[in-house]
Amino acid sequence: MAVSALTLDRLCIHQVTLMQCDFRASIECFSRHGVRRTAVWRDKLDEFGLSEAVRILKDQGVSVDALCPGGLMTAESPTDFREAIDRNRIWLDLAAELGAQSMVTITGGLPDGHTDLSAARQRALKGLAELVPHARAVGVKLALEPLHPMVCGVRSVISTIGDAMEMLDELDADDIAGLAIDSYAVWWDRNLQAELARAGSRILHFHASDWLPDTEDLRFDRGMPGDGMINNPQIRGWMEQIGFHGPVEVEIFSHKNWWKQAPDDVVLKILERMERSL
Amino acid sequence: MAVSALTLDRLCIHQVTLMQCDFRASIECFSRHGVRRTAVWRDKLDEFGLSEAVRILKDQGVSVDALCPGGLMTAESPTDFREAIDRNRIWLDLAAELGAQSMVTITGGLPDGHTDLSAARQRALKGLAELVPHARAVGVKLALEPLHPMVCGVRSVISTIGDAMEMLDELDADDIAGLAIDSYAVWWDRNLQAELARAGSRILHFHASDWLPDTEDLRFDRGMPGDGMINNPQIRGWMEQIGFHGPVEVEIFSHKNWWKQAPDDVVLKILERMERSL
Repeated sequence: MAVSALTLDRLCIHQVTLMQCDFRASIECFSRHGVRRTAVWRDKLDEFGLSEAVRILKDQGVSVDALCPGGLMTAESPTDFREAIDRNRIWLDLAAELGAQSMVTITGGLPDGHTDLSAARQRALKGLAELVPHARAVGVKLALEPLHPMVCGVRSVISTIGDAMEMLDELDADDIAGLAIDSYAVWWDRNLQAELARAGSRILHFHASDWLPDTEDLRFDRGMPGDGMINNPQIRGWMEQIGFHGPVEVEIFSHKNWWKQAPDDVVLKILERMERSL
Repeated sequence: MAVSALTLDRLCIHQVTLMQCDFRASIECFSRHGVRRTAVWRDKLDEFGLSEAVRILKDQGVSVDALCPGGLMTAESPTDFREAIDRNRIWLDLAAELGAQSMVTITGGLPDGHTDLSAARQRALKGLAELVPHARAVGVKLALEPLHPMVCGVRSVISTIGDAMEMLDELDADDIAGLAIDSYAVWWDRNLQAELARAGSRILHFHASDWLPDTEDLRFDRGMPGDGMINNPQIRGWMEQIGFHGPVEVEIFSHKNWWKQAPDDVVLKILERMERSL
């Protein structure tokens, strides 16, 4: 299927892709190459604080599609669970101040020593439900992101678009909650095209990176689009068929390669890949 | 859900769990501890050759539930594909000589540089279909095993019980083809209980190991049942509810831990875990 080339106004690069930079350096690097959209990485925000971050973004003309990651609400201890909810309310406030459409929200994994996925999913759902009023109040969407099954235990007890859809059905708050789809997490799903169609207007974000054949790490060894096994343009095409025309958000976690490169080279490589691999 | 303790006659330990041993030493170790069932690892068979292997098994009173792994039939080049089929016919002959019920069959991943999962799945299905007559002739079942989505690219283009069921539906040879279910591959699936029920009598094998919270490797860092996040007794319970009463086959790939231990210690640890974690 032919997909039109991605245009610069639809390219977003997640700040975490330049983990080697501090907050300011990453935003300046995007701006220098004409990249006008990012998703802010929460830990990076802590480096300069909110007001300085907002100033940097404004000065550089870079807008924020989302704050990442929120959620992590599967703690079994009521105290820990409550603290997680409180933290998320603060993160939602930060997202609002950044002008972000969404907070990308992951459920969290299994607490230490636990094996009950179903109970952890119930707690995550309860957490989402508790965040809905505050998300509405500040006007920031909860973009629920299923992660790859290989991080089911430690990062997300929902693993497929179907899992996330089921949780959103139960949450019943489509005005303020939707989906973030990451090609890295779902590319292997044989029903991907149908699942995307079923998700339809719930899809708020599309993250893209690539799966390397020689992946060595379960979290931090993602590839540059075009270097691996994921047909990102095909997935984007499927999403456009169902009416998604948001940005393609490049999000690469890469300990051994891209986080060691010169930031300008990373951004130039992404721009080079826009035509054929995004 | 209460599950009865696993009994020794239903315990099978895959030979690969003792990768540190040669063919003879692993079988002798099983026998020494009263373990009477194994699944032979194909590479280990090469060490002594078939007739010596059969003699060792007979002398030690260890029977063979399966030969692992067969399949790997996703090559795009017609020559490579043909060679894969020829190799599998030989492996089926070996499995028959070993008295194995099945050859555990994995599809293989994506060929180098390819991104078309659907085409690779079609080739794997074609491969299975070509093996059916020979499998029938030698009386060895094709036990199709979905692997974890994290090895989709390199080992198996089918990742869920649903994927495997769809392939078996198309193959339409339930007399000679069925499923091998590995808890390590499918534990994260929220529909697991329902999928097992749907698979029903197609299930020929149940492999068990555990998912470690700090997993460092995509293939060779499996845990001892009881050390991780998988509720193996619950999964066995679900399988028994639908009439599966075959052995529990412990299959642990563990570069950094169990493959470095004394083989007797590994087997003793498995026996110790039979009561609560298998």
